[in-house]
Amino acid sequence: MKRRLLLFWALLLASSPARAEVRDWVEANRAAILSEYVGLLSIPNVASDTPNIRRNADKLVQMMRTRGLNPRLLEGDGPTVPPAVYGEWLVPGARRTLVLYAHYDGQPVAPEEWRASKPFEPTLRSARFDRGGEVLRLPRPGEPIDPEWRLYGRAAADDKAGVMAILSAVDGLRAQGRRPSFNVKIFFEGEEEAGSPHLAGILSRNKALLASDGWVIFDSPAHPSGAKQVVLGVRGITGADITVYGPNRPLHSGHYGNWAPNPAMSLSRLLASMKDAAGRVAIAGFYDDVTPLSAAERQAVQAVPAADAQLKAELGLAGGEGGGKRLVELIQEPSLNIDGLRSADVGERARNVIPTTATATVDMRLVMGNDQQRQYEKLIAHIRSQGFHVTEAEPSEEERQRNPLLARVVKRGGYNAERTRLEHPLARDVVQAVRAQGATVVLPTMGGSLPLYLLSETLGAPSVSVALWNYDNNQHAEDENLRLGNLWEAIAVVGSIMTMPQPPPATPRQAAPAR
Amino acid sequence: MKRRLLLFWALLLASSPARAEVRDWVEANRAAILSEYVGLLSIPNVASDTPNIRRNADKLVQMMRTRGLNPRLLEGDGPTVPPAVYGEWLVPGARRTLVLYAHYDGQPVAPEEWRASKPFEPTLRSARFDRGGEVLRLPRPGEPIDPEWRLYGRAAADDKAGVMAILSAVDGLRAQGRRPSFNVKIFFEGEEEAGSPHLAGILSRNKALLASDGWVIFDSPAHPSGAKQVVLGVRGITGADITVYGPNRPLHSGHYGNWAPNPAMSLSRLLASMKDAAGRVAIAGFYDDVTPLSAAERQAVQAVPAADAQLKAELGLAGGEGGGKRLVELIQEPSLNIDGLRSADVGERARNVIPTTATATVDMRLVMGNDQQRQYEKLIAHIRSQGFHVTEAEPSEEERQRNPLLARVVKRGGYNAERTRLEHPLARDVVQAVRAQGATVVLPTMGGSLPLYLLSETLGAPSVSVALWNYDNNQHAEDENLRLGNLWEAIAVVGSIMTMPQPPPATPRQAAPAR
Repeated sequence: MKRRLLLFWALLLASSPARAEVRDWVEANRAAILSEYVGLLSIPNVASDTPNIRRNADKLVQMMRTRGLNPRLLEGDGPTVPPAVYGEWLVPGARRTLVLYAHYDGQPVAPEEWRASKPFEPTLRSARFDRGGEVLRLPRPGEPIDPEWRLYGRAAADDKAGVMAILSAVDGLRAQGRRPSFNVKIFFEGEEEAGSPHLAGILSRNKALLASDGWVIFDSPAHPSGAKQVVLGVRGITGADITVYGPNRPLHSGHYGNWAPNPAMSLSRLLASMKDAAGRVAIAGFYDDVTPLSAAERQAVQAVPAADAQLKAELGLAGGEGGGKRLVELIQEPSLNIDGLRSADVGERARNVIPTTATATVDMRLVMGNDQQRQYEKLIAHIRSQGFHVTEAEPSEEERQRNPLLARVVKRGGYNAERTRLEHPLARDVVQAVRAQGATVVLPTMGGSLPLYLLSETLGAPSVSVALWNYDNNQHAEDENLRLGNLWEAIAVVGSIMTMPQPPPATPRQAAPAR
Repeated sequence: MKRRLLLFWALLLASSPARAEVRDWVEANRAAILSEYVGLLSIPNVASDTPNIRRNADKLVQMMRTRGLNPRLLEGDGPTVPPAVYGEWLVPGARRTLVLYAHYDGQPVAPEEWRASKPFEPTLRSARFDRGGEVLRLPRPGEPIDPEWRLYGRAAADDKAGVMAILSAVDGLRAQGRRPSFNVKIFFEGEEEAGSPHLAGILSRNKALLASDGWVIFDSPAHPSGAKQVVLGVRGITGADITVYGPNRPLHSGHYGNWAPNPAMSLSRLLASMKDAAGRVAIAGFYDDVTPLSAAERQAVQAVPAADAQLKAELGLAGGEGGGKRLVELIQEPSLNIDGLRSADVGERARNVIPTTATATVDMRLVMGNDQQRQYEKLIAHIRSQGFHVTEAEPSEEERQRNPLLARVVKRGGYNAERTRLEHPLARDVVQAVRAQGATVVLPTMGGSLPLYLLSETLGAPSVSVALWNYDNNQHAEDENLRLGNLWEAIAVVGSIMTMPQPPPATPRQAAPAR
């Protein structure tokens, strides 16, 4: 089996001239690519910042137009909805149509926490900032560029890197006088980090335009070992803000302490009840409903290189949840995580009070088989099982007077997991095209969440995610960054996918012999 | 027993002409007292506001001088330290010297939150503002004054009311041609609400001047039932900021959730381990060391009228800690309270991350027998018993790598409880003098903390606190107010204390018979 695969790869590489050529084009054009990318990263891109989101969209239309990609904006249902930016490269005679996806918006920023750069003043450094990386000026064409250099700025990795890789691969093919092996449609979303509230509307209003045989998504970090990843699914997500109530005004902890119930303590107890000491979720039925992995998928999981020890050392972690299971195994399961806690104040701002409320935000990741509403209801049932009266609205004075334990729980959106089977032609072909560019890990699902269910529900399209950014890119946090080598590789990978072999021509189905 | 007490009181009342007389003087002079008090409350009195604090001190010197109290300022170690204002009324032949204490500074104000008055524009209202009380002009002499009227302004209760009651009682006695039964020393502190940082210095520099047989402190609210309170002690206090560590950068909860340990969960589990479901502190030995109440003290606690149901209704509380014990019983015990929680963010600002740290601030109240350092060490031992490695400083990368559970614990000051025994002559005599003025609750300790240990450590003086302000006076918050009836009662109480019977003459100790 292994020998046959090797032989197959050898043939594939021999038959595919794309590998060396797109790499060559990238190598000759790094300074120009980097310069264009810095310009794109300089435009603030938080989805709620309407004027700047429009500036991003206009810039992308312009970048697509110079590439002959026939761009247009796919508007949401109002001027404050970030538009998607669409482009296409249609190929006469192509037997397949694929949509290449990235998103151009980024996570909100807290500028005061950024140290390596300002969020929207992209800064090149000679290495990771926290490992002594120093500021570099942008290289001129022909000057050497170290693949270990880091470009700091919001969305440098997540996910303007996807935008830049796709557009640069188009450049590479055009420069080489080549064309893709399928009809390429490009879809750049503008509100992914805001939870894609208008994506379904945009998709369903543009069904014909977006008709395809599948989506290839460029929006995730590579494996910590450095290997590229092809990810065939995402976890779903839901979550909740849980607020526990104490006295209706802050009470002096001396005059009323150990008499008045403390909501911070009630919340701590509630949260502690949700997991056992090994990190296993203790909510009744939490692991029910899960669709088991197929044999091939289990095998793919087993084949993922172990990175746990390296990761733990880098993250300053001695312990871990999951009772010794590897990270890659654990993300095949549903999870529960505390995102944050708030009650009165701590440290220098603390006062000796019994707080009036204590709030936790939790998120729950879902896998195939979980239904987001059902999983949320298991959480609610658990909170009730701990003695709490649960409300959705701010509780009334009467509810406070009647319920010793009182929690307001507000749902934080939610959508289900999505997974394309490893045996699907789209999965098989993309895996081959990525493997042709170097070591590749195949994951049945990634740990993160994307609303891919929208694609299958609205468009009936399967999807495959190609994950290429350095895993230590600080996405969603301050000091987000992209390792330049990962951008060069990503462009080569997109080129490889765009020129992967066509599927065999559709043949009429052989009729089953009559019995 | 009950009959004997009644008989005793009847005799006491019959033998003490002070009760009716000081009351009579107050009744005839209410408008004048009120007018002088409004003048005093008009001077802003936040301890950090040096020019105005000096104006207050000068005003008090002037008020004492007109009363013949031989005033002087007791300065701290610099011009920005609020001085204490000292006065005295020495009585030839007195067999006892007592210091009457109040403080003239008030809590800081947030003027925009005040609705019933501006903080330093005292305003008379016909009832509580939030119950429809309307603004009244100040009454002229002879006009009727309803005891339910409220005077709004910062320090109207806490604690210029103490200052005013003491000085008015002096007026009453002088007007009646009477004199106190002990050497009266008056001590008005100017930075109590700032935590009395210079009090120890002022006391130790004036040991001879302040030599006494005890302090009587007028600085606390009456019992919610309306009864006057004599409080014989305060709880001590210590506390800690507890920070639990997770990954050294915020991690995406999808990619790393249920693998990386979550510090918010570890902290919740730790906090939950500190108390059982009934609110009993589960830290080993937490209730050891406590000096039990004497039979008389237990009896006093039992005699305190129940206010729990009324309080719970007002505070919107259905449950409570302490397994059904009453508030007044619970404050006789050491306590542990969570003051606040912080980890990443919640609600709209939440992100789907595994936070890097989670912090709780806790306070611990101490009773007689507890040593603040020893109690703190029990907390540390408990945290260790839950598997945590405990550091005082920010942990090193090496400590993070080595310890699955890691907590940084920083001590928040601390001092011990203080209590004067109910059997002490000072306590006994003050209780009798207050009881002579109406229903009185005697508490072995209050729930709050004051650094009374300073008095015993620096001056060797016992202390008794007489608590007289309406309990709904909003002290420390906006719309602080004093119910006028409580001021009239307070003046009568101070008069009663100032004229309480002298202790019997000291007799030479009877030698034990030789065996």
